[in-house]
Amino acid sequence: MTRPLSVAVAGLGTVGGGVLRLLRDNAEIVAARAGRSIAVTAVSARDRLRERSVPLAGLRWYEDPVAIAFDPGVDAVVELIGGAEGPARALVEAAIEAGKPVVTANKALIAIHGAELAAKAERHHVPLAFEAAVAGGIPVIKALREGLAGNRITWIAGILNGTCNYILTTMRERGREFAEVLGDAQKLGYAEADPSFDIDGIDAAHKLAILAALAFGRPVAFDAVHTEGIRGISALDIAYADQLGYRIKLLGIARQTEGGIEARVHPCMVPATSSVAQVEGVYNAVVAEGDFVGRIMLEGRGAGAGPTASAVVADLVDVARGRVTPVWGASSGDLSDAPSVPMEAHTGFYYLRLMVIDQPGVIADVAAVLRDHGISLESLLQRGRSPGEAVPVAIVTHDAKESAMREALDKIAALDSVLEAPTLIRIESA
Amino acid sequence: MTRPLSVAVAGLGTVGGGVLRLLRDNAEIVAARAGRSIAVTAVSARDRLRERSVPLAGLRWYEDPVAIAFDPGVDAVVELIGGAEGPARALVEAAIEAGKPVVTANKALIAIHGAELAAKAERHHVPLAFEAAVAGGIPVIKALREGLAGNRITWIAGILNGTCNYILTTMRERGREFAEVLGDAQKLGYAEADPSFDIDGIDAAHKLAILAALAFGRPVAFDAVHTEGIRGISALDIAYADQLGYRIKLLGIARQTEGGIEARVHPCMVPATSSVAQVEGVYNAVVAEGDFVGRIMLEGRGAGAGPTASAVVADLVDVARGRVTPVWGASSGDLSDAPSVPMEAHTGFYYLRLMVIDQPGVIADVAAVLRDHGISLESLLQRGRSPGEAVPVAIVTHDAKESAMREALDKIAALDSVLEAPTLIRIESA
Repeated sequence: MTRPLSVAVAGLGTVGGGVLRLLRDNAEIVAARAGRSIAVTAVSARDRLRERSVPLAGLRWYEDPVAIAFDPGVDAVVELIGGAEGPARALVEAAIEAGKPVVTANKALIAIHGAELAAKAERHHVPLAFEAAVAGGIPVIKALREGLAGNRITWIAGILNGTCNYILTTMRERGREFAEVLGDAQKLGYAEADPSFDIDGIDAAHKLAILAALAFGRPVAFDAVHTEGIRGISALDIAYADQLGYRIKLLGIARQTEGGIEARVHPCMVPATSSVAQVEGVYNAVVAEGDFVGRIMLEGRGAGAGPTASAVVADLVDVARGRVTPVWGASSGDLSDAPSVPMEAHTGFYYLRLMVIDQPGVIADVAAVLRDHGISLESLLQRGRSPGEAVPVAIVTHDAKESAMREALDKIAALDSVLEAPTLIRIESA
Repeated sequence: MTRPLSVAVAGLGTVGGGVLRLLRDNAEIVAARAGRSIAVTAVSARDRLRERSVPLAGLRWYEDPVAIAFDPGVDAVVELIGGAEGPARALVEAAIEAGKPVVTANKALIAIHGAELAAKAERHHVPLAFEAAVAGGIPVIKALREGLAGNRITWIAGILNGTCNYILTTMRERGREFAEVLGDAQKLGYAEADPSFDIDGIDAAHKLAILAALAFGRPVAFDAVHTEGIRGISALDIAYADQLGYRIKLLGIARQTEGGIEARVHPCMVPATSSVAQVEGVYNAVVAEGDFVGRIMLEGRGAGAGPTASAVVADLVDVARGRVTPVWGASSGDLSDAPSVPMEAHTGFYYLRLMVIDQPGVIADVAAVLRDHGISLESLLQRGRSPGEAVPVAIVTHDAKESAMREALDKIAALDSVLEAPTLIRIESA
């Protein structure tokens, strides 16, 4: 057997602890799979004295995470600090420049700086691996970049944020409102004290940007992802979805269109019987469609110490075995320069839910606005009557253009009889 | 870019045609992912003159498939002949001995001779890849061997035969009998003229043997797989399953138990709400449980020219990139020698369906036999009355030992009031 792979881990939070525990508990399995043992020899974290679940005795300790890149006894660096800037970015850059393979779980860093980091890694002939950055323990990066390597991927979609999926699932199962369920999720540790990163779709957008780059073989383009979160979803919308045969999911979707690549994260109505609709609670799933393979779905836990550690160690095993894959699936010269298309160019079916004053002529006004923008109605639901009071109206459109829909929506919102900002949810056949 | 990888393909049936088509249609994508182009330069098939969907002009033609292993212009061999013996085996052995990487879709060959072929490949430092042998286009070999490399896998289960899943799905949806649906499946091309390989569970057992070896890091052991097919499943059983909240699936299941590894293929009742139960028609799925990753499910098309070609080409891309993984996930010296446990040692819940004469005392007799073997009943359904006529009785047991169940079954079958061979279906929580 070759000599051990000596690894430095920066960041000893939940995931870092998980990685150390995995490498200790499953040392024999990992060594067999890697062809050599994988040993953590150096660590860096903010608080040296904090109580940890894994003993750190005998490991070299660094206050400054970047310093581990210069430790001559370190063969590979694991970055678990997080954040697109600051020490995480500095460490990854330093390690690549020092010629040391990097394994990271940092989706923000890869989504935002992944194009330049890939170029740097290529220049220095250093692997940069990030299986843990998307969908936790599900080996989706490997599946896309290697397992489906022969395919022209036409479409990819995923439930990429467990917090949002947990909230939407619980709202549906309990018939409760967003704010209440979010509060409970925070108490249970399924949502952060500041939840905006998750519930506004940013975390999912980071992951989708990475998946889209891999699926379409081009450098990552986070800025091109249209991003909406789930704050605007009410119990009423979930009830309407149920009635219409749909479930509401926050999906990240990327698609090859004639004009280029469309990438978007927003709440969707998906058929209640579809595979994606069955993915509930904190589970993640990724569905990809390739021209030869057809449709593939991968499902599993998208977060947590165990699943994320599983992904980090899979990357370390690749490093230990010398299995190398270019960051975006191909060398920079072989990447596609397919343009991104703006969300305004999207076409699809829409669900629109209004609160209106129940009085004659309201529906006629709304319908006239839609007609004037070339949008035709598939169905309209106005249940119950309360003359002069606020009542909900749900509308499902036929295929419409996003730009027309937005203009129509502004006009509808401005009608006197329309009381709140309308809720717009896109319908996906997924 | 490095010089092209020159590939010989033996066997130009459906899958072979698919591989040639993929390498032609997606040549640019494949070259980018592989870091070099992948070119088929030689082929071998039985009938040179047969009309084919892909032109063969300019390719070197061999009558004898084994001869392609000796073509000095060939870098890697793709074996798509099929069968555990004969030319397929001879070609794979010859190619390995000639130091040429082998990619095969041949599950029978790998399941039956995989241990010795792996040893040979290791001796000659030659990759032997077989992603296409299990679950078609789903990259399950890669996921298990690389993506979940850090995990102790405790359990793996799969819907591994699309023909059986199609038949069981159609029986349920249409309320029809096995023989009728099989006949239709044969007309539609979903089942072979001689369907026994599929419907008796042998094909699924080949695949399960491979998955179990990968999951538990030991050489493949096909003979240790307990195998039953779906011939005995009637529309009546499917209706009972529905009533009890289950669906019937042919599953391959391998599990790490205290005594060793249990591997079995047989019809199962699974909860109707489980993920596996939602996998319908010709789709395949594999579920794995790891100590760190938790439960992962992969789903997709398990057969057909496109999905199988996708898997073959993924293996070729690995070969072209020089990404090498030992056949059973670890070198021979690092493999586990965990013993196999016989089916008799299995414990679980059972569904038992009898046809009995509707007369007083029958249920008492059956219940007494079960009691005498230490098997307790969870439920018993005897719907309707037809005194003196044949009526079905469905029984669900509590946790029972397979050996006790079999003895009890023999005694029950021998009762005068029991009219046909009883149907036994194991219940899985999965």
